[in-house]
Amino acid sequence: MLTDNEKTGVYRAIFERRDIRQFNKKLINEHTLQKMILAGHHAPSVGFMQPWDFIIIKSQEVKERLAKVCQKEIQALSIHYEDEKKTKFLTLKLEGLKEAPITICITCDPTRGGGHVLGRNSIPETDILSVACCIQNMWLAAYAEGIAMGWVSFYKKPDVREILDIPPHIDPIALISLGYTDQYPTMPILEKENWEKRLSLNSLIHHDSWLK
Amino acid sequence: MLTDNEKTGVYRAIFERRDIRQFNKKLINEHTLQKMILAGHHAPSVGFMQPWDFIIIKSQEVKERLAKVCQKEIQALSIHYEDEKKTKFLTLKLEGLKEAPITICITCDPTRGGGHVLGRNSIPETDILSVACCIQNMWLAAYAEGIAMGWVSFYKKPDVREILDIPPHIDPIALISLGYTDQYPTMPILEKENWEKRLSLNSLIHHDSWLK
Repeated sequence: MLTDNEKTGVYRAIFERRDIRQFNKKLINEHTLQKMILAGHHAPSVGFMQPWDFIIIKSQEVKERLAKVCQKEIQALSIHYEDEKKTKFLTLKLEGLKEAPITICITCDPTRGGGHVLGRNSIPETDILSVACCIQNMWLAAYAEGIAMGWVSFYKKPDVREILDIPPHIDPIALISLGYTDQYPTMPILEKENWEKRLSLNSLIHHDSWLK
Repeated sequence: MLTDNEKTGVYRAIFERRDIRQFNKKLINEHTLQKMILAGHHAPSVGFMQPWDFIIIKSQEVKERLAKVCQKEIQALSIHYEDEKKTKFLTLKLEGLKEAPITICITCDPTRGGGHVLGRNSIPETDILSVACCIQNMWLAAYAEGIAMGWVSFYKKPDVREILDIPPHIDPIALISLGYTDQYPTMPILEKENWEKRLSLNSLIHHDSWLK
């Protein structure tokens, strides 16, 4: 059982964690980085398949190549918005890949654990859901360490595969930026920028049936 | 910033959390249940789309119908295993839906937030990844509350949709069993039962490229 203070820590991390796109130059020490990755590796996974890999990117050249393909995708996506929404979209800071001292590409290997992974046989996408749990663990560990983290999902997978020499059957689920930030935000960027609002929890709760 | 004790709490929840399939009869109080769901609702989501809904199931009749379709699926899956692996598979306790006082079906609405959800336009499956982060938050909150949780993914989605009156476009991502357990396990069931081993973390780490 956790103590009251430890329990407070779990809830604080869950409620205060934010998605960050602004980083300063402070570096992350190796021990802290390893602790965060170990936290990811202790996520639940379907049939205990542990489908994740971690490509730790510190090379500035590689980070810049990743930033470039993300910026291309952001330009392409902007075509779908019009008028003020488009202007707003293009002013949002959507990734901090060049600034963050570390990027981690977290991947999913759907072949890990062989052909009949327990549970994945019924719902194949449970492999990527396991990877998402790994990322969320890392995010909470990052918050506990005072480290800022951002999840970037603006890219075409073949671009990221090419830059990082990832085989075709491996899914690059996320690019995670890690570093420190001068001002850790108190609310989600998209809420602060009036892009979306937090939904009322009551509207999302049903009892014994979707209809009730 | 978290205090040292609060930080310990985050790591303890991450490392000690287990997937549970054995529940006793103790009930969960409503306030604690709401806190856990609120923790889920504070997960990150792509474009802040918050695609989750929570169907809280307390009706014993509904739980038994869900358990029945899960048991059917487990029987069907057992066909794929042979010899000792089959015997072992059938002796594993893979769900505790009838025993757990509460089951929550957590769903994903891919239409929430409209047609051009920021980020989801590039990688559509980020909606279900957001739901997985919600589930992981709930799991860690459950651990903080001393509550046992199990993620069941042995079912055919049309069966669950039918039992819970879920519309065809809504994805029933997981059935989550919640309750108390007499002995919270210290290692994953599938590791304890020698089904799978935890992989060495070093074998999963790469530097600047998949190949290095």
